[in-house]
Amino acid sequence: MGAASFIAGDWGTSHLRLSLCDAAGHLLETRSGPGAAGVVGGRDGSRERAFEQAFASLVAHWEETYGELPAVLCGMVGSSIGWTQAPYVACPARPEQLVDACVTLRGGRLHIVPGLSCRNRLDAPDFMRGEETQILGALQLVPTLRNATRLLCLPGTHTKWVVLQDGVVREFLTAPTGELYAVLCEHSVLVRKPARAADPIDMHAFQQGLAQFGEFPRAQLLHRLFECRSRQLAGELEPGAADAFLSGLLIGSDVHGALRLLSDGTPTPVYLIGSSQLTPLYALALGSQGCESIEVDGAAASLAGLAHVHRCRSAEVALHG
Amino acid sequence: MGAASFIAGDWGTSHLRLSLCDAAGHLLETRSGPGAAGVVGGRDGSRERAFEQAFASLVAHWEETYGELPAVLCGMVGSSIGWTQAPYVACPARPEQLVDACVTLRGGRLHIVPGLSCRNRLDAPDFMRGEETQILGALQLVPTLRNATRLLCLPGTHTKWVVLQDGVVREFLTAPTGELYAVLCEHSVLVRKPARAADPIDMHAFQQGLAQFGEFPRAQLLHRLFECRSRQLAGELEPGAADAFLSGLLIGSDVHGALRLLSDGTPTPVYLIGSSQLTPLYALALGSQGCESIEVDGAAASLAGLAHVHRCRSAEVALHG
Repeated sequence: MGAASFIAGDWGTSHLRLSLCDAAGHLLETRSGPGAAGVVGGRDGSRERAFEQAFASLVAHWEETYGELPAVLCGMVGSSIGWTQAPYVACPARPEQLVDACVTLRGGRLHIVPGLSCRNRLDAPDFMRGEETQILGALQLVPTLRNATRLLCLPGTHTKWVVLQDGVVREFLTAPTGELYAVLCEHSVLVRKPARAADPIDMHAFQQGLAQFGEFPRAQLLHRLFECRSRQLAGELEPGAADAFLSGLLIGSDVHGALRLLSDGTPTPVYLIGSSQLTPLYALALGSQGCESIEVDGAAASLAGLAHVHRCRSAEVALHG
Repeated sequence: MGAASFIAGDWGTSHLRLSLCDAAGHLLETRSGPGAAGVVGGRDGSRERAFEQAFASLVAHWEETYGELPAVLCGMVGSSIGWTQAPYVACPARPEQLVDACVTLRGGRLHIVPGLSCRNRLDAPDFMRGEETQILGALQLVPTLRNATRLLCLPGTHTKWVVLQDGVVREFLTAPTGELYAVLCEHSVLVRKPARAADPIDMHAFQQGLAQFGEFPRAQLLHRLFECRSRQLAGELEPGAADAFLSGLLIGSDVHGALRLLSDGTPTPVYLIGSSQLTPLYALALGSQGCESIEVDGAAASLAGLAHVHRCRSAEVALHG
């Protein structure tokens, strides 16, 4: 481990994770803070001021110890609910374009990574913010991603399917799979069991949901959802396992639709970038549809992406600064 | 109008509508009461006692005026959260089977209509409770439904698609279209506008949702939902119209999937049985997919079904009683 060199931050809607890193991007220390939605403006009502103060107070201890440190942030911190609005870079987008379009604050010491936009395969506008940094990181962690056409999947509240061609982000597609799962678990009569991330998922019921989806993959999802309830009534599904069955149906649907739209001519495997709770479920769904997968840790990818941006921006300052 | 002859009641989860009718089934008076979920057990904790008392107090004024009256109820009053558990009659089911399987209470004066069950076209168990009475009523109101193969759609929280063959309910399929719409409007970041039944729907945005669905009807619904948000971000959709756009996507998906599964060989039109808020939206979706429709008022169908059961049960008592 080297000396403290910069601060990397993934600042989402509901959570902030700050990492103190050495020059090579190795993690030295971490701190948690409020999500972008939880940063409340001060007496003068300025959002920028509120983010500035929140950030300054979180890094004060590190800066007292190590002096002024550069920082790179990604996520909703760069959105309309964030510190400042970073742009969306339009696809096809090269990694350098993301680095170049960073927004700079704190007298040039802080960079916020822009998001990505595209017209997706279903002729709709599409957006991401935060995942672009994980893609940058994956390109660092898995150099083979820089060649040929590759399909990436970043599962989550809003799952992103991404087509890379020779390291360029060609296009992507969003599926609110995690959000649909959560609202149905918490608010519908179909499941009647709140989703608790901490509970281990019932793998038998998850596989049952995957298998049922696979019986009629072209049926509309709407005509499968009532099964979560009717199979309980019929004694074919344990009431406590309906959430896992629903997860199998939803992830099966997500994977089937994305492979159908995006995998034409793309060689397997699919690169799964995300948490260790989610990527194994997607790996199972991909496997059930004859597709191999390679799992990449989402937090590591995010950190590698932020470190990459830091290195590129530092080099630029050294050249032109 | 004739003299008061019987009481008809549609007792759902969240609402009770009681109707005082003459012998021909014409409406004389109505009363509203608590839904089955709102009937709270008395001090002895008996659910039956609580329903008995709730019903008795609601009809007391009528019985004081007209003497003891027979009654027919349908809906969740016959479920595990209701007065007593009426059975599910398995499809294929003839109308007479529904009449015969009524559960009798209050010394033979009150009948609760059973529900229907089937193994649906997607090899899942399926259930209905309440809609079977609307089907019975529609068979009375629209006698041509008794011949040939007919496709019915009863839109609602849990939309039911029903195949009738010579007046026999062959099978049905449930789509929680209304429930998905409500939970996404109220609890997701995709719409950010609570669904209010009283507000008129933005028909332009509804048609836009239908049209967008129609561009890629075989895409998975999961890959369309984010459009409700991304089109707002891109300035292609008014923020206040995202709920109507979502409604177009969902009803388009429901109609497309149901026609694909159930309409093989079935001649159009589809009979739409429901509220005047919902049936026109389904009629538009059916029309956009080249299918004609005939709208039948849902409350009238329910009343006609309850009156039919009353007539059949009275005739039986007269014969054998």
